[in-house]
Amino acid sequence: MKAIAYQTAGDISRQDALVDIELPRPEPSGRDLLVQVQAVSVNPVDTKVRRGVSAEPGQWKVLGWDAVGTVVATGPDASLFKAGDLVAYAGSLTRPGTNSEFHLVDERIVGRKPASLSVAEAAALPLTAITAWEALFHRLEVERQVPGASRAILIIGGAGGVGSIAVQLARRLTDLTVIATASRPETQAWVKEMGAHHVVDHRQPLAAQVAALDIGAPSFVFSTTETGQHLAEIAELIAPQGRFALIDDPETLDVTRFKRKSVSVHWELMFTRPIFQTVDMDKQGKLLNEVARLVDDGTLRTTLAENMGRINAANLKRAHALIESGKSRGKIVLEGFGV
Amino acid sequence: MKAIAYQTAGDISRQDALVDIELPRPEPSGRDLLVQVQAVSVNPVDTKVRRGVSAEPGQWKVLGWDAVGTVVATGPDASLFKAGDLVAYAGSLTRPGTNSEFHLVDERIVGRKPASLSVAEAAALPLTAITAWEALFHRLEVERQVPGASRAILIIGGAGGVGSIAVQLARRLTDLTVIATASRPETQAWVKEMGAHHVVDHRQPLAAQVAALDIGAPSFVFSTTETGQHLAEIAELIAPQGRFALIDDPETLDVTRFKRKSVSVHWELMFTRPIFQTVDMDKQGKLLNEVARLVDDGTLRTTLAENMGRINAANLKRAHALIESGKSRGKIVLEGFGV
Repeated sequence: MKAIAYQTAGDISRQDALVDIELPRPEPSGRDLLVQVQAVSVNPVDTKVRRGVSAEPGQWKVLGWDAVGTVVATGPDASLFKAGDLVAYAGSLTRPGTNSEFHLVDERIVGRKPASLSVAEAAALPLTAITAWEALFHRLEVERQVPGASRAILIIGGAGGVGSIAVQLARRLTDLTVIATASRPETQAWVKEMGAHHVVDHRQPLAAQVAALDIGAPSFVFSTTETGQHLAEIAELIAPQGRFALIDDPETLDVTRFKRKSVSVHWELMFTRPIFQTVDMDKQGKLLNEVARLVDDGTLRTTLAENMGRINAANLKRAHALIESGKSRGKIVLEGFGV
Repeated sequence: MKAIAYQTAGDISRQDALVDIELPRPEPSGRDLLVQVQAVSVNPVDTKVRRGVSAEPGQWKVLGWDAVGTVVATGPDASLFKAGDLVAYAGSLTRPGTNSEFHLVDERIVGRKPASLSVAEAAALPLTAITAWEALFHRLEVERQVPGASRAILIIGGAGGVGSIAVQLARRLTDLTVIATASRPETQAWVKEMGAHHVVDHRQPLAAQVAALDIGAPSFVFSTTETGQHLAEIAELIAPQGRFALIDDPETLDVTRFKRKSVSVHWELMFTRPIFQTVDMDKQGKLLNEVARLVDDGTLRTTLAENMGRINAANLKRAHALIESGKSRGKIVLEGFGV
């Protein structure tokens, strides 16, 4: 089968940063589905792994943690899906990625493809929807009140892949006032389109801008990017006993400044459940099915911003470079294998 | 009225580190109670403030955040207590402390004195009971399951003031398996007496000792002391999606190592509610009344370990020095004003 892979970690500008190769088609076992991949999206995790993690000697490393495709075979213990089903999922960081014609995934972390979306539109959603859903509902538990605090959430990096779906989930599924950050006219318009009540500029100090909204100190902050730069402002603007979630990779994260307000700090890594095979890992499949339902009834929309064409090394390199520029908005998707 | 105070922050060995003075008796307003103080305890916060915070020029700084005494007057808006009531409380970091014959405190953070305890035994409890209760039930929310994880909690520093009551609360009021750390034979015996199921030594690596108990990865870790030293071990031993609370003052606290397991980090500072006058600050008075009830029905016991005699500068200096040695066990109390 076709696959896109690399052997040595490094810069995207290198000729062999990503190459088109042939690999044997894998066989499903246990609760695995074998999926024929039709579309994938590219996430920041792809670029982080590519820069930092080389393949085992003589092996290939396949990236890609988002796919839409058709189930073509199932392991002996699988029961949730059957051959022919259209599925959407993000997979596991500890297994080969989705940038290959056929791909294995545990059925517990798989959802059905939203019927109303094209395969490309659907491929934009799984990883970011799982991340945003887990951050809002499983980590921050936004339904649970912070006593006396404003029913508001600040979402830092509102125009990014996770931000774009987090803004929608917070606006459509909760009573929260949604404040999103964006710094350019086009990204500010985008987060408004996603449902933000208010937009503030993360290139300017955040606390004063949030205070100027005159709605009280937010109960929640969800930081999707550049958290290290915003930490002092977050501590200043969040409500006492508030809850703060983050997903990015600051080199260090000194949280001593949160003590005075007894704030809690919630890491969200969507791969935690598949990595540790937690007993509740099927929550990911269930939430993906719920997201599909909410897309099909018109509550949520895809965050697809750019379709970069066929799934091959040349196009994936362009996608990686755009994500590494920090200028991407919403999600980048590729569709179909070939030139 | 008699009071013990200082003007310049610094080392406890200085002659004027704490001195006996006379101050005017304060007047209650709003929801304040005026309390005639009969016993106080000494907490690490006393020594931290004394080392780091000088009085305003020409003024005196009075320490002390724990008292048992008798209400002698009430502000016009107070309704929960009346003159003659025996009360126990920890007060607020933003007001003068309890090391004075008369003291003002907001009634919402005050509880009744447990009837079955002496004033000295009762004075050991408020600050540490509030801290441990808030950490376990309001921050960690130990009743809420971590899916698939062991119903166990590791309490680091089990023999300290907060540890001693936290071990009791976790053992007597929850179904958790309680693992406490203590490093010396006498402190190990003490934490067993407080109710710990298992004792491990915080001078040795913690993860291997907890694994050797063969009860699975604990859902919760509550660190009361030297958190910076134990951080890597905590990240290794805690369950995926586990919850970690702390109360001490590491110079920095880099929590990036908790990302892989999506662990949450919960600060507990018992002064957060009184400092910010949160709408739920009366939770502190209510939990102190509940602690009094649990003491009087025999469920909890005092953590008083040493009564250092009268409340004066000489005795308070001895108490500060003992706490700063890091060798104290349970709580140090002083009782009555005079020589």
